[in-house]
Amino acid sequence: MEETFLIITEIIGTIAFAISGIRLAAAKSFDWFGAYTVGLVTAIGGGTVRDLLLGATPFWMVNGWYLGVTGLALVIVILLKRYLVKLNKTFFVFDTIGLALFVVIGIQKTLEYGFPMWTAIVMGTITGALGGVLRDILINEEPLVFRKDVYATACIAGGIVYWGILLGGGSSVLQQSTCAASVIIIRLLAAKYNWSIPILRDYADDNK
Amino acid sequence: MEETFLIITEIIGTIAFAISGIRLAAAKSFDWFGAYTVGLVTAIGGGTVRDLLLGATPFWMVNGWYLGVTGLALVIVILLKRYLVKLNKTFFVFDTIGLALFVVIGIQKTLEYGFPMWTAIVMGTITGALGGVLRDILINEEPLVFRKDVYATACIAGGIVYWGILLGGGSSVLQQSTCAASVIIIRLLAAKYNWSIPILRDYADDNK
Amino acid sequence: MEETFLIITEIIGTIAFAISGIRLAAAKSFDWFGAYTVGLVTAIGGGTVRDLLLGATPFWMVNGWYLGVTGLALVIVILLKRYLVKLNKTFFVFDTIGLALFVVIGIQKTLEYGFPMWTAIVMGTITGALGGVLRDILINEEPLVFRKDVYATACIAGGIVYWGILLGGGSSVLQQSTCAASVIIIRLLAAKYNWSIPILRDYADDNK
Repeated sequence: MEETFLIITEIIGTIAFAISGIRLAAAKSFDWFGAYTVGLVTAIGGGTVRDLLLGATPFWMVNGWYLGVTGLALVIVILLKRYLVKLNKTFFVFDTIGLALFVVIGIQKTLEYGFPMWTAIVMGTITGALGGVLRDILINEEPLVFRKDVYATACIAGGIVYWGILLGGGSSVLQQSTCAASVIIIRLLAAKYNWSIPILRDYADDNK
Repeated sequence: MEETFLIITEIIGTIAFAISGIRLAAAKSFDWFGAYTVGLVTAIGGGTVRDLLLGATPFWMVNGWYLGVTGLALVIVILLKRYLVKLNKTFFVFDTIGLALFVVIGIQKTLEYGFPMWTAIVMGTITGALGGVLRDILINEEPLVFRKDVYATACIAGGIVYWGILLGGGSSVLQQSTCAASVIIIRLLAAKYNWSIPILRDYADDNK
Repeated sequence: MEETFLIITEIIGTIAFAISGIRLAAAKSFDWFGAYTVGLVTAIGGGTVRDLLLGATPFWMVNGWYLGVTGLALVIVILLKRYLVKLNKTFFVFDTIGLALFVVIGIQKTLEYGFPMWTAIVMGTITGALGGVLRDILINEEPLVFRKDVYATACIAGGIVYWGILLGGGSSVLQQSTCAASVIIIRLLAAKYNWSIPILRDYADDNK
C-alpha cells in the first residue's frame, strides 16, 4: 500500500521532471531524440550524479521504467502540446511533489551509505535540483535554479527539517514525511508570495 | 590479425573524433591547450562517462596512447589545416567507422559487467555520442546531436540489431559486425538522403 | 607544524578558488544560492572529478570544512565587495598558491592509487584546472582556461618537474615542493611577461 503510493509518486515526479526538460528542448527546436535526452537527463540526472558520488550503481541502470516513463512524457508533449500551457499549474504541483520525494530518496540513500547528515542534505539537494542544472547546460542556458525562485533552498530546508526530527528522536516515517511536506510547503508558499533569494550584486557595481 | 584490425580502427576513430573537436575549438579561437583538451574530451568523453556509470576504471587512465593519438590529431590540424576542408568526406567516413566501433565496445563492456541488454544499448549510444555533447558544452554551443542528422539514432538502431542477433542465437562476432555495419549504413544513408529526426515544435507555437 | 602549514594553504587556496567563482556568478546576477554553488564547484569540482575517475570517495563528502569555507568566501564577497577589486593582486597570488597545492595533491593521490606518472600529471591538472572549467560551464561562458593565459600549462609543467625529481631520486618532499614552486613561478612569470599559448587559427581562415 505505502509501497504503491511511493511508486506512483515517483512516476508522477519523473514524468513532471521529464516534461519540463522536453518542453524547454522544444523551445530550442531540438529533435525528438534531443528532447527525449534532455527530458531524461532532467529526470534522472540528479540521482545519477548522487549515485556516482556515493559509489553506487546509478539507479536507472537496473530498472528500465525510467527510460519508459520518459518516453511517455515525450508522447504526452507531442500529442498534447497545445493543451500543456493550460496545465502549467498542475505540472507545477506534480513537479513539486516529485522534488520533495527526490530529496527524501537522496537523503535516505546517503545515510544508508554511512555518510553524515550534512552530506545527506547536500545529496538530497543534488538529487532534487541538479537534473534541472544539467538540463539548462544541455540547452545552453544559465541554470534557472541559480537565478530564480526558491527551489534548491526548499530542498536544503527540507533536509534541515529531516535532521531536526532525527535529532528529536522522531521515527523514520516522520522524518521523511515532514521533510517532504516542508519542501512542498516552502515551494508553494514561495510561489504564492514571490519569495526569492537575494541577488548577489556585481562586485563592480559600486565602482560605476 | 583481427586484433590488429581493431586497434587500427580504434586509432582511426579516435583521431577522427579528436579532429572534430579540435576543429570546432579552432573556430572558437581556443589556444593549443584548449583545442587539445576539447579534442581529447570528444574522443574519450563518451567512454569515460560509460566507465564511471559502470563502476570501471576509465579506459584511458591505464593506456597512454589515447593522449598520444590526440596529440597527433592536434599536429595534423595545425600542419594541414588548409587542406582539411577538402578532406571533409574522408573525415566523415572515419568518424562513422569510429562511431560504429565505439558503439560495439560500449555494448560489449556493459554486457561483460552483467547489465541487461537495454542498458548496454544506452551505454553504446553514450560511448558513441556523448563525447560530441561534451565537446559542444565546452565550446558553449547547443549540442549538434540534438538538432541535426541521424547520429545517436544510428547508435540506438545498431544496438537493437545487436540485440536481435543475440536473441536469434548469432555468434558474438556476428552480433558485433552486424551492429557496426548497421551504424555505418544507417549513418551513410542518412547523410546521402538527408534523413533527419522530426523536430519537436515549441509547445507555444500553436498559441501564436 | 608542516601539517598546519598545509591546512592553512589549502584553506587559502579553497577560499581563493571559491571567491573567483562567486565573483563571476555575481557578474551574472545569480542569487546567493547560485553564487555559493558556483563558488563551491570552482573550489571542489576539480578534486571531485579526480576522485570519481580514481574510484575514490570525493574528499569533501567526509570533511565538512570545504562547504564551510565556501560559505565564508560568500560572506567575504557580500561584505567586502567594494574593496575586492583593489585586492585583485592578492587574490591572484592566493589563487596561484592554491593551484600549486591542488596539483601536488592530485598527483600524490593518483600515485597512491597505483596509476602511472603520466596519469598522475593529468589528474594534477584536472585537480587544479577543471574547477574553473566547470565554473565557466555553469555561468554559460566559454572556459577561460582554453583561451587565456598560462594556467593548465603551468600545472602540466609542474607535473613534469615532479616526474623529473622522482626519476632523479629526489625525496618525496623535494618532488612536491619543486612541483609546487614550478607551478607558482611559471604562472607568476607568465602573468608578468604576458606569456600565452598559441591560438589555433580557424581551419577555414586560409580559405577566406
